[in-house]
Amino acid sequence: MSPLIRRVAVVGGTHGNELTGVYLVKKFQQFPDLLKRSSIEVVTLLANPQAVESNQRYIDRDLNRCFAKEDLANLELRDYEDTLAKEISAQLVPKDRPHTDIIIDLHSTTAHMGLTILPIDKHPFNLKLAAYLSTLDSSVRICFGQSYGRNSPMLRSLAPFGCTIEVGSVPQGVLNARLFQQTEMLIHAILNYIDAYNRGQPLDTPSDLILYQAINSVDYPRNSLGELQAAIHPQLEYKDYQPLHPGEPMFLSFTGEEVFYQGESTVFPVFVNESAYYEKHIAMVLTEKQQQQIKG
Amino acid sequence: MSPLIRRVAVVGGTHGNELTGVYLVKKFQQFPDLLKRSSIEVVTLLANPQAVESNQRYIDRDLNRCFAKEDLANLELRDYEDTLAKEISAQLVPKDRPHTDIIIDLHSTTAHMGLTILPIDKHPFNLKLAAYLSTLDSSVRICFGQSYGRNSPMLRSLAPFGCTIEVGSVPQGVLNARLFQQTEMLIHAILNYIDAYNRGQPLDTPSDLILYQAINSVDYPRNSLGELQAAIHPQLEYKDYQPLHPGEPMFLSFTGEEVFYQGESTVFPVFVNESAYYEKHIAMVLTEKQQQQIKG
Repeated sequence: MSPLIRRVAVVGGTHGNELTGVYLVKKFQQFPDLLKRSSIEVVTLLANPQAVESNQRYIDRDLNRCFAKEDLANLELRDYEDTLAKEISAQLVPKDRPHTDIIIDLHSTTAHMGLTILPIDKHPFNLKLAAYLSTLDSSVRICFGQSYGRNSPMLRSLAPFGCTIEVGSVPQGVLNARLFQQTEMLIHAILNYIDAYNRGQPLDTPSDLILYQAINSVDYPRNSLGELQAAIHPQLEYKDYQPLHPGEPMFLSFTGEEVFYQGESTVFPVFVNESAYYEKHIAMVLTEKQQQQIKG
Repeated sequence: MSPLIRRVAVVGGTHGNELTGVYLVKKFQQFPDLLKRSSIEVVTLLANPQAVESNQRYIDRDLNRCFAKEDLANLELRDYEDTLAKEISAQLVPKDRPHTDIIIDLHSTTAHMGLTILPIDKHPFNLKLAAYLSTLDSSVRICFGQSYGRNSPMLRSLAPFGCTIEVGSVPQGVLNARLFQQTEMLIHAILNYIDAYNRGQPLDTPSDLILYQAINSVDYPRNSLGELQAAIHPQLEYKDYQPLHPGEPMFLSFTGEEVFYQGESTVFPVFVNESAYYEKHIAMVLTEKQQQQIKG
């Protein structure tokens, strides 16, 4: 049997203007009993307090890209978030005490992604947990970015197990009561799942799952100065996880020209029109829809 | 007959992260012929370039609250936006040349407000123009804030005629192609309307209109530290301009309690869950729906 999972971290405010996680963590800090389960120790963390205070994604740079192992070891990196990442790493993965086993990192997106689970990696435990969550609500989908696993620069990569939860669409700096409740439901479900697993009475999970594996990203059409020349096409807007077939429209230029998807196979766009990704030159992430057997 | 309207200003980027206006103004600056009408001179203005550059609403304070006459005359006010407001005032209302007759100020909102026209005041010309626009698209609505007229602190108050156009819902920092096109349609319709008016061939307008007059605003439930304790109730979310009856739910607290509307008469909330209004302690603005005859 796999080792037990003792230490869980529930993290919000990794991006300071994604309020669902910020206010859920504040709620749990006010009512810590809500997270109590007999077999686990749960800590909560408001990851980027200065960004929360100023209602911005970050102060100097995106905290959720600061956790690559080489960056954590690089003492030359001294931006606010670089320093913060080292502090969070020391807190969740201390040298002299047991490490955090599982991280749940709470995010929101302006894309129409429902309740998206981005597991840390494809370890059977993470897949089973994601498969379990997908049975609870029809808007739960499971997605892997191009960069995942323990070597990714994301906060969740500090632990071997867990996931990011991305909920949307909701604007930055806005609370949506329904998404708040649904995210809280997912957190309780994860804790219940772990607790049952620890007690040797694992909850039923499907033997396979549908996952969306990112294959590449697409930038907006831009001019030679890098300025946007088009927006997401109305036919694609709000259509995250829906099939995009070769020849279908992706963008509508400011002067009315349509730009079509030139790929040769059907893809499933996600993070369509995510506000924070304009600066990353990502208009959407294209995924393949895959069915995966869960081993172990 | 009323005087002719010669000088029109189309303004975007008064709030730097409301991209619809920013990219429409950039388009018009690239293709100025689009705005040409025989009887008028049209200028375009990207009002807050530093805020646009940093994708923020403002740098020091909300530019669209800096145009009160006493603030423009107060040389002690030296925040970035205070100085900018004085420059914009000098540009649009110069001492030695003719003033701007009409301002169209382009905004967007995270509230579900469709195409909202906020006229400068209730002058018959402004009401007729708004009534004309309401005939073009069923999502056009006409709204007056609690503060309107030439004494309001908003940019549009620099001119005697014109309006703010608020479109939504769209997150801050996000372009929505459909709202971009609809806003552009409204600008062309306004220019056509003015041009026909100047040529003595005014376009037909309804003799009355429905307007939504703000009566007060409502803050989120907060604790003694000023922290939010609730979000907009799911039954009210996205319901701008829909009737809210006494006893109907307004908020859902983070612990699941419903908060009900305690007023004695039916109201029509707008700016429901506008991201930028959290810091202004406005969860929504309550309006009365009124039918108004247009004189003159």
